[in-house]
Amino acid sequence: MKDNPHNIIPELTLNWKMAEDILTRFISTEVRRAGFDKIVIGLSGGIDSALAAFLAVKALGEDNVLAYSMPYKTSSPESTEHACEMADFLEIPLQTIDISAPVDRFFDSRPGIDALRKGNVMARMRMITLFDAAAENNALVLGTGNKTEILLGYSTLFGDSACSLNPVGDLYKTQVWAFSAFLNLPESVIAKAPSADLWIGQTDEDELGVSYELADAILHKMIDLRKSVHEIAVMEFKKSLIELIAERVRKNHFKRVLPPVAKISPRTAGSDLLYSRDWGT
Amino acid sequence: MKDNPHNIIPELTLNWKMAEDILTRFISTEVRRAGFDKIVIGLSGGIDSALAAFLAVKALGEDNVLAYSMPYKTSSPESTEHACEMADFLEIPLQTIDISAPVDRFFDSRPGIDALRKGNVMARMRMITLFDAAAENNALVLGTGNKTEILLGYSTLFGDSACSLNPVGDLYKTQVWAFSAFLNLPESVIAKAPSADLWIGQTDEDELGVSYELADAILHKMIDLRKSVHEIAVMEFKKSLIELIAERVRKNHFKRVLPPVAKISPRTAGSDLLYSRDWGT
Repeated sequence: MKDNPHNIIPELTLNWKMAEDILTRFISTEVRRAGFDKIVIGLSGGIDSALAAFLAVKALGEDNVLAYSMPYKTSSPESTEHACEMADFLEIPLQTIDISAPVDRFFDSRPGIDALRKGNVMARMRMITLFDAAAENNALVLGTGNKTEILLGYSTLFGDSACSLNPVGDLYKTQVWAFSAFLNLPESVIAKAPSADLWIGQTDEDELGVSYELADAILHKMIDLRKSVHEIAVMEFKKSLIELIAERVRKNHFKRVLPPVAKISPRTAGSDLLYSRDWGT
Repeated sequence: MKDNPHNIIPELTLNWKMAEDILTRFISTEVRRAGFDKIVIGLSGGIDSALAAFLAVKALGEDNVLAYSMPYKTSSPESTEHACEMADFLEIPLQTIDISAPVDRFFDSRPGIDALRKGNVMARMRMITLFDAAAENNALVLGTGNKTEILLGYSTLFGDSACSLNPVGDLYKTQVWAFSAFLNLPESVIAKAPSADLWIGQTDEDELGVSYELADAILHKMIDLRKSVHEIAVMEFKKSLIELIAERVRKNHFKRVLPPVAKISPRTAGSDLLYSRDWGT
């Protein structure tokens, strides 16, 4: 095993061999029970999609993993290079679909659109691209959002968070790094600073205002161990930071649940009709 | 009350006055508890969005309902006319955003794209447009999918089904018609044949292969009354049709639930972290 390029707290260090088995089996089981053999995945050049793609190749085989690079004209060339490097590493083809033309025509129709709104449009245009590629290839869309991002709401609803299944959504970002190092994924992909790459120089940790190491340590205590802000503060962390994280988790909860439907009948989609996805098969 | 332009079975006839109160209150409560005053809505020219807009104006006032018409170049001009008529009726402004340019540039990037995939791209481009309009105006997106459509899966995932809240998702299509007649919505909008308007001459009932009256009668017995295919067949309906509907409901269930996330920690988004949308406020 390589050294960890990013720090992880000991409590979050899992039995990575077992994690590999569980997550690989999750992909093959979920894809096949839904009646499919293949997945499509967006390779951003970052570590989350690299890890998800690695697990998918292990679960389904190289021929059943279709990878897409979806740059916008301002995307960092390094992102595309890392996506290519990862596809080569996995020995899978990588198709590039530039989203600039439809995105720019959309921007034309919305004068005054700001950077945040633009970022959401790009994330959603990639969702359209991936789901269309899935329809074209009779495949499902593999999600790549990690647990830190899901809890902090650092994603676009119906954009990068949209998928058919997600094998890495219960792994914190620091776990994604440690797990990827264990699996010997390319060092260049593991070592780079994580970024949504929506504008030049953007990094997650700048935008979130906290390091992933610290965020994960606090989130683990808050969510997995169900500790209060006060209990976590007593341990070692700054109370203002813990409160900021708690507030983010709470404010972004709408991204993690189905939208409410007004209930007026005995059985309502989303509140009473709650079978598993493959009931009746 | 006007005569029903479309038949509804007696069991689905509700106390429409009470329904109006419940659904209006749902909108005002859900919008305000999320910290907003306004909603945006796509007016397609059809009855579902007309009813949802009517309820929203009643709940929030004319100034807080922002309506959008989002035609594609092949959309029926009649759809836009009916959307305008409805906006006039409600005394709310209607903004038109043509989605043709970004949609066509998207199609350019996907040679060989077929009609079904094109329809999904259009539905998702309208989702992008509405969520962007919501961000621009500090508003939520009001959903307009009815219960028949939700149960039969006659919608695009992350497209027309995507919303912040849905006041009409627990009303069958025949209930939407009867309710709209009770509320005296414009006759031209109520009487027209329902259509997704993705290509010329498309009608829902042709595409679904069954009338809404019959589909709703069967779905009501199947879902609300929990009757088996056999029990419903004994009542009066053709068994092959009931089986076809049951299969559609089952096959489209994935559109009504969150995508599965592989579980590896004690608390996982979507499976254990199940608070209401506004916990902690």
